[in-house]
Amino acid sequence: MNTLLLDSDDVDTHAAFGDVIDAVEAAFAAFERGDTQMPAKSYIDLPRYNGDFRSMPAYLETEPWDAAGVKWVNVHPDNPTDHDLPTVLGTMIYSDPETAVPLAVMDGTTLTMKRTGAAAAVATDHLAVADASSLGIVGAGVQSYTQLQAISEVRPIEEVVVTDQDDDRVARFVETVGDEFDVRSGSVAEAGHCDVLSTVTPVSDPIVDLEDVGDHTHINAIGADAEGKHELTDDLLQSATIVIDDHEQCTHSGEINVPYHAGVLSDDDIHAEIGEVVVGSKPARADETGVTVFDSTGLAIQDVAAAHVVYENARESGSGLDFGLIDTEQ
Amino acid sequence: MNTLLLDSDDVDTHAAFGDVIDAVEAAFAAFERGDTQMPAKSYIDLPRYNGDFRSMPAYLETEPWDAAGVKWVNVHPDNPTDHDLPTVLGTMIYSDPETAVPLAVMDGTTLTMKRTGAAAAVATDHLAVADASSLGIVGAGVQSYTQLQAISEVRPIEEVVVTDQDDDRVARFVETVGDEFDVRSGSVAEAGHCDVLSTVTPVSDPIVDLEDVGDHTHINAIGADAEGKHELTDDLLQSATIVIDDHEQCTHSGEINVPYHAGVLSDDDIHAEIGEVVVGSKPARADETGVTVFDSTGLAIQDVAAAHVVYENARESGSGLDFGLIDTEQ
Repeated sequence: MNTLLLDSDDVDTHAAFGDVIDAVEAAFAAFERGDTQMPAKSYIDLPRYNGDFRSMPAYLETEPWDAAGVKWVNVHPDNPTDHDLPTVLGTMIYSDPETAVPLAVMDGTTLTMKRTGAAAAVATDHLAVADASSLGIVGAGVQSYTQLQAISEVRPIEEVVVTDQDDDRVARFVETVGDEFDVRSGSVAEAGHCDVLSTVTPVSDPIVDLEDVGDHTHINAIGADAEGKHELTDDLLQSATIVIDDHEQCTHSGEINVPYHAGVLSDDDIHAEIGEVVVGSKPARADETGVTVFDSTGLAIQDVAAAHVVYENARESGSGLDFGLIDTEQ
Repeated sequence: MNTLLLDSDDVDTHAAFGDVIDAVEAAFAAFERGDTQMPAKSYIDLPRYNGDFRSMPAYLETEPWDAAGVKWVNVHPDNPTDHDLPTVLGTMIYSDPETAVPLAVMDGTTLTMKRTGAAAAVATDHLAVADASSLGIVGAGVQSYTQLQAISEVRPIEEVVVTDQDDDRVARFVETVGDEFDVRSGSVAEAGHCDVLSTVTPVSDPIVDLEDVGDHTHINAIGADAEGKHELTDDLLQSATIVIDDHEQCTHSGEINVPYHAGVLSDDDIHAEIGEVVVGSKPARADETGVTVFDSTGLAIQDVAAAHVVYENARESGSGLDFGLIDTEQ
């Protein structure tokens, strides 16, 4: 009984966005149908190191496949300056639900970016205008690249407008994706007037206002991942059709957490969970105008779905390192 | 940044009982002092496969070291018959709390047996009579070996009496440890009249009664790990000084769970948590007579403490496989 070890390159190679988007969409549908198990994330707070760990176990059952696993991930904001390490490091154990054999241990950092991009793509597919061809990005960090790659799978993105406080990050983004896209640096409002906008910043003071977006912009609000964080103003949220990934996570630490707890937004202002839109129990975009917002906090079932894709593709292609982790002869 | 991969043999080699017992004792003490974080286990139930997964994250801080990690483990009772696999398979991610780097991924199955044996040894050290030299074992499965090995570290065990419904298991145990110990097959009562008794069976109907034990027997009750399971009769428990590892886990799924919920035992019947005994805030054994029971459910901090020992020893000796799981240059 071997466990397949998959490093960052393996995960990158075998998490083709087309496949991951399909798997994440299937996971959202399973969530809506009640065919998932996803205990609340467990947190370990480490004030001594200004960081935390999160344990994210999940199981999901789709029609053709089921999958289980746990992602162990952290947020250590001092890592880049103090240790020359990323803020977030993830490790994923992907297991066979039938026997509990750990089929794979893989990098969960690349996996997280992939499944987050895929979630934005699923939401964009259902909520953006059908002929969307421009994408704005607020925040040119690592997640900006996977937003562009994933969303390009569901809409023929040609024009990209990127903005960031850090000019170097913008220059790097333009340089990196310039061959493939018509990309330019622009203001928040210029990014916001694209057909689709992804916000991927860690801000606690909103930076995108109602007048910054177009009359039909679909916004993927990715950045907020903790109490007190939000990227969009209350005005903007109040004017938009809001779709969330999970009620508990979004009201606790997603884009809507601040206005929700302030009483600015209530459950009546939430149009749907993304799973309801995917299965069709709540409508997707119907009109050519109207702003939509997808509040993405990231669900453990997305990680398991993405890990399923990576494992199956890697196993088929003979990639990764087979390792006899557990002696089952004992 | 590499992650050390440690298979079952590596864990076995580098989890020397002397070190693991010290680390687990330090973990119990840290638990009592409030220097641990241990969110409740998260369960994923898989009725389709008659199994479950458990996610066990923890952090602990002792004076000279701190450590963090998560164990992902399962119970699939049909594994042996249907898949020729063990019922329980564990995988442990051991992480640096300061940076969250996954220092090691290791077999969690061997680790579980080691840390469980170590817990029994810690309890035996504080609760058995000082000159204990005989050990009874009820249930000659895989855990019986680690019970004997670990307890021998804290008391000079010479005589061993083993009992099991399965004669083959008894014969194998006698054969395996016969060179080192004066070991014989015996009845439950013969095992129970040793100075120390470890019960390691999955029964739901108690098999050890008050008259089966001696006047000063210390009992490590290891087997109960789910609601409805218990190995010791109510009479025996009511007559004993009861020490538990954790109130929530023990009353939920430990040896005392059935009588506790039946109202046969109450909090007044619980002498202490083992951490209280370790730090001295509650007394250890003082008298030459009196039956003591340690209700061991297994805490996530034990896994992290044992993983700390394995990682440090393996790293020092150059064992294991260095693997670049996460590309931190991204």
